[in-house]
Amino acid sequence: MANKIKRRLAALPLKDVDITGGFWAPFMRRNREVTLPAEYEHLKQSGHLDLREWPELVTGTPRIYMHSDVAKWIEAASYSLVHNPDKAMERRIDKIVAGMADVQEEDGYLNAYYSLVEPGRRWTNLRDCHELYCAGHLMEAAVAYHSATAKTAFLDMMKRNADHIAKTFGRKRGQKRGYPGHEEIELALVRLSLAAGEDRYLELARYFIDERGRNPHYFDIEAAARNDKGAARGHGYYQAHLPVRKQDEAVGHAVRACYLYAGMADVAALTGDGELFAACRRLWESVTGRKMYVTGGIGSTAYGERFTADYDMPDDSAYAETCAAIALLFFAWRMLGIDPRSCYADVMERALYNGILSGISQDGAKFFYGNPLASYPGFDGNGTYVGPGYYYRRSEWFGCACCPPNIARLIASLGSYIYSLGRREIWIHLFAESSARMVMAGKPVVVSQHTDYPWDGDVTVSVDLQGEAAFRLALRIPGWCSRAGLKINGRRVDAPVKNGYAVIDREWRSGDCVKMELDMPVERVYADPLVRRAACRVALQRGPVVYCLEETDNGPALNSLRLPTGTRLTASYDKSLFDGAVVIEGEAVRTAGAAGGKLYGNCRPVETRGAHIRAVPYFLWANRNPGEMLVWLGEQRS
Amino acid sequence: MANKIKRRLAALPLKDVDITGGFWAPFMRRNREVTLPAEYEHLKQSGHLDLREWPELVTGTPRIYMHSDVAKWIEAASYSLVHNPDKAMERRIDKIVAGMADVQEEDGYLNAYYSLVEPGRRWTNLRDCHELYCAGHLMEAAVAYHSATAKTAFLDMMKRNADHIAKTFGRKRGQKRGYPGHEEIELALVRLSLAAGEDRYLELARYFIDERGRNPHYFDIEAAARNDKGAARGHGYYQAHLPVRKQDEAVGHAVRACYLYAGMADVAALTGDGELFAACRRLWESVTGRKMYVTGGIGSTAYGERFTADYDMPDDSAYAETCAAIALLFFAWRMLGIDPRSCYADVMERALYNGILSGISQDGAKFFYGNPLASYPGFDGNGTYVGPGYYYRRSEWFGCACCPPNIARLIASLGSYIYSLGRREIWIHLFAESSARMVMAGKPVVVSQHTDYPWDGDVTVSVDLQGEAAFRLALRIPGWCSRAGLKINGRRVDAPVKNGYAVIDREWRSGDCVKMELDMPVERVYADPLVRRAACRVALQRGPVVYCLEETDNGPALNSLRLPTGTRLTASYDKSLFDGAVVIEGEAVRTAGAAGGKLYGNCRPVETRGAHIRAVPYFLWANRNPGEMLVWLGEQRS
Repeated sequence: MANKIKRRLAALPLKDVDITGGFWAPFMRRNREVTLPAEYEHLKQSGHLDLREWPELVTGTPRIYMHSDVAKWIEAASYSLVHNPDKAMERRIDKIVAGMADVQEEDGYLNAYYSLVEPGRRWTNLRDCHELYCAGHLMEAAVAYHSATAKTAFLDMMKRNADHIAKTFGRKRGQKRGYPGHEEIELALVRLSLAAGEDRYLELARYFIDERGRNPHYFDIEAAARNDKGAARGHGYYQAHLPVRKQDEAVGHAVRACYLYAGMADVAALTGDGELFAACRRLWESVTGRKMYVTGGIGSTAYGERFTADYDMPDDSAYAETCAAIALLFFAWRMLGIDPRSCYADVMERALYNGILSGISQDGAKFFYGNPLASYPGFDGNGTYVGPGYYYRRSEWFGCACCPPNIARLIASLGSYIYSLGRREIWIHLFAESSARMVMAGKPVVVSQHTDYPWDGDVTVSVDLQGEAAFRLALRIPGWCSRAGLKINGRRVDAPVKNGYAVIDREWRSGDCVKMELDMPVERVYADPLVRRAACRVALQRGPVVYCLEETDNGPALNSLRLPTGTRLTASYDKSLFDGAVVIEGEAVRTAGAAGGKLYGNCRPVETRGAHIRAVPYFLWANRNPGEMLVWLGEQRS
Repeated sequence: MANKIKRRLAALPLKDVDITGGFWAPFMRRNREVTLPAEYEHLKQSGHLDLREWPELVTGTPRIYMHSDVAKWIEAASYSLVHNPDKAMERRIDKIVAGMADVQEEDGYLNAYYSLVEPGRRWTNLRDCHELYCAGHLMEAAVAYHSATAKTAFLDMMKRNADHIAKTFGRKRGQKRGYPGHEEIELALVRLSLAAGEDRYLELARYFIDERGRNPHYFDIEAAARNDKGAARGHGYYQAHLPVRKQDEAVGHAVRACYLYAGMADVAALTGDGELFAACRRLWESVTGRKMYVTGGIGSTAYGERFTADYDMPDDSAYAETCAAIALLFFAWRMLGIDPRSCYADVMERALYNGILSGISQDGAKFFYGNPLASYPGFDGNGTYVGPGYYYRRSEWFGCACCPPNIARLIASLGSYIYSLGRREIWIHLFAESSARMVMAGKPVVVSQHTDYPWDGDVTVSVDLQGEAAFRLALRIPGWCSRAGLKINGRRVDAPVKNGYAVIDREWRSGDCVKMELDMPVERVYADPLVRRAACRVALQRGPVVYCLEETDNGPALNSLRLPTGTRLTASYDKSLFDGAVVIEGEAVRTAGAAGGKLYGNCRPVETRGAHIRAVPYFLWANRNPGEMLVWLGEQRS
């Protein structure tokens, strides 16, 4: 019998955390000023804001997952409203919600596609048709909008919808024993349950999680009823090959998988289900121990956007969908809440500064769906040959536009992932110029961070409160950091480190100041030799930021460069590089033509010393001149 | 104005060359005893031998390219009949031919699919529907069968078909200005022209070659007439993006491309067309200088079975179709005939001993379509993830079964590629235990080779003739060989080397014996550093044979092995390895877990010396226990 578990950390409400400057401020400003308005226009022009206007707008059939992208945009906009009230934006959201309300059916069913385009066919193909996925995103949006504005209409609408779903699905007589082909509603129902104070939504989430993968298999039953020959992709594609408690390996579509795992962790936390949490841990190990790129990207192939075999991490054909890295962050955040260990926050940070942030351009208006770790002229982001003259670049929009609003909602809600509260501790997971209001030991406390992180490893944390209070401050020592120093009010201290967090336990007074000094040298990072595509290669990392070489800085043929093991690499701040960024430079070796320019020959390629290399943060790639890009660089002994 | 060119070398008829033992004898025996009968059964069972029997045999629509696979089988069987008469096999062929004769239409049109399945739609989709491709293969088969048996029925049938095609296509009023989407008929028409002694078939080949890629574009005109939106793949896929004389780069489907180039070289040779030959040379450079695997495989991606960008040679997702390597050999052979330089024969040999021979199992009954240079459990031959427990293996047959009869016809006709005749020279291009009858300087001459090539570099060539005769013997010095010695009748001589051939000019007497001693050490082969997937890696080669590591000899995780630059590699003959083969052995270094078993870490992976490696010829892979395979092995400085 597994141990009972619980959620040990509480998140801070977004409204109580201000990002006051530093690295993230320009991202949040662009998100508000550029990304959200641009995404709104794309959603409108693509005809997905209100399906009743569809026929006038576009031709063809609307996309079955249309509500989800709109919902994520509403969710992102709602987070933005928390700190930046904007009546025009609220009116836009109200109008969209009103349009959906008109389409909601009497019994609470809500999906404009089925109500308007294929009436009578609702709930006939849970495997492929994304109804529960869309409902989940709408629930998350409703919770966020309610939280931002205190308006209840959207939340009420989604409660009615959730009630309809709870009536339709379950183990009682007359109910369908279904569950979604694209997970998401599980974690959304948990959020709805907490927002509405209704346990029945949590129960429904638990039903969806536990029904998944049982025999007789619902997807087969449902497919037979449709005269469909069954899931060509296999049930594993949907993480429905086994009951979730029996799953050990992350398989199938990476976004679906991590949304499910996040929902599993939520349900485990709220119901104390240690067995379910044990499954989450095994799946966490599978994803992050054997199937994750150094950028935090997951899902190695574009074909099915899915996980493949352990250690299979092709660089130029990496899929590493932006949404999947975000889903991994969601999963990590929930694991961290139950089991506060820095390994979870390390993965959040790895994804955030690399495989997530690469998903949006520096002007805030263009997006990557796939985030490869190498790119060559002529090839698409998934390594497919397109033809000469082609360069893989971010796009303004996609037919399936899941990633753009997903990154918008993540950036807009970033404040909520920085801190959390334990019973007697304030936890700092991420380092960002910010200020957070909370209540600790019965007193209002304000915790502020001052830092140039991730460009600099110094983080100053100051505490403000009335009088004094005893509590612990738990500061994450990042996994990338091999030497960290701590000073309290200017005096060096040794704090015990527990589960990767330096824990300072004292009587705090207003103005107390903790300075954390994280040594941040340029690191050469190696992959387990089982990661075959990284064999004989090295990646450069400094702090949480993974670097890459771009053709615009280094010329073409990046794979002909080799970094000698003894080369000194220096980091410097280049304030002209977008918002300013640290670049890494050093001298490498360039190899040229084997055996007098033949394609193959028995002479070792000729090496020329003194090839200057300049590496930039991976997340910045493809914002300047198009060209090659490479993360895993050839290394040779000096 | 380009120079006039001509074919300078004449091939020997297959009947005049006996393969008398050595390396190739068991391949030829298996081809005759196992491969040809097995392929016949597969063709029969798949219902493609005679479409009139189709409805009884199988369901679904027959394949539009059905005749081509049957034709290649007939061609292979015909070559086999040359040295091994077999009345039962002749009866089989006669029956197939009689069946086709019944289907041939009054006007000479011959394609059972169109005549029986889609009557009235013939010649409406040259781009996709393979009618001219099938006709070409049938012409080649008819020429081969006529040559083997002197029976004329099949040849006459194909002449009537060619006459029909010549009437249908051309630049005269009322003719269609079409050409094939899948080239092949060009080289076939040249063969038919020579066999039938009719220049008009050569003219038709020239028309097809020169019409290709002109504007207005025939494929567009034809597509518009079908209400087809046009070639989604672009005209380059069919090598029809430009007139062939303007083409510089090998693009599109690799087999089609090399069949076209072979046909172009044929037409150039027979019409003296220097401009057309110049285009062949540019395309040759493109293919072999920038787009060829070290195994002689071509076509880097399974998606379209096509060429991609220069130097793009992924190993685990290499396509390198068996047919494409064979097509490259055909192209090389024709170039060699016009311009006798060893570089062409070097490529023939590279393809033959590696990327072609890997296409058939050692039991002669299973085939590879794609020939990757690395293979991992769970992945298909083109690098697609299939799932746990899967191993890429040769198959007994394919839905599109082009490769199995193609390799059968190549092996059966191998004798014709070993020697050729110049005006005053006997040329030896390939080394094989064999004996060839020819007429030189007006006298019958028999040239024999005694050799264990490719396992040993000694080749003894003896000459038998009545009396004496003055002529030159041109012996290829392979490109892989850096030191070659020559002895005539036991005495060391220095012969001038011209265009890669040692030329011995003397009065020959019966019993004269030339011994060529080709130094055959184990070579470390490097790729041009622009071949990014081979960066920091080395391949092992000995003589013409490229080696690989297999899991069954070396354990799993082949990419965790690194070969130090100073390691001594030894070659030894293992007589128990199938027909006997030289294996390469040495001590490598195995790297293990970076940073204590983490997926990524800043510690260089731990190295363990003394990992014994055993490499086997690449063509032998996947004949023993399934598992990983790797050609390009990590290398590090000692």
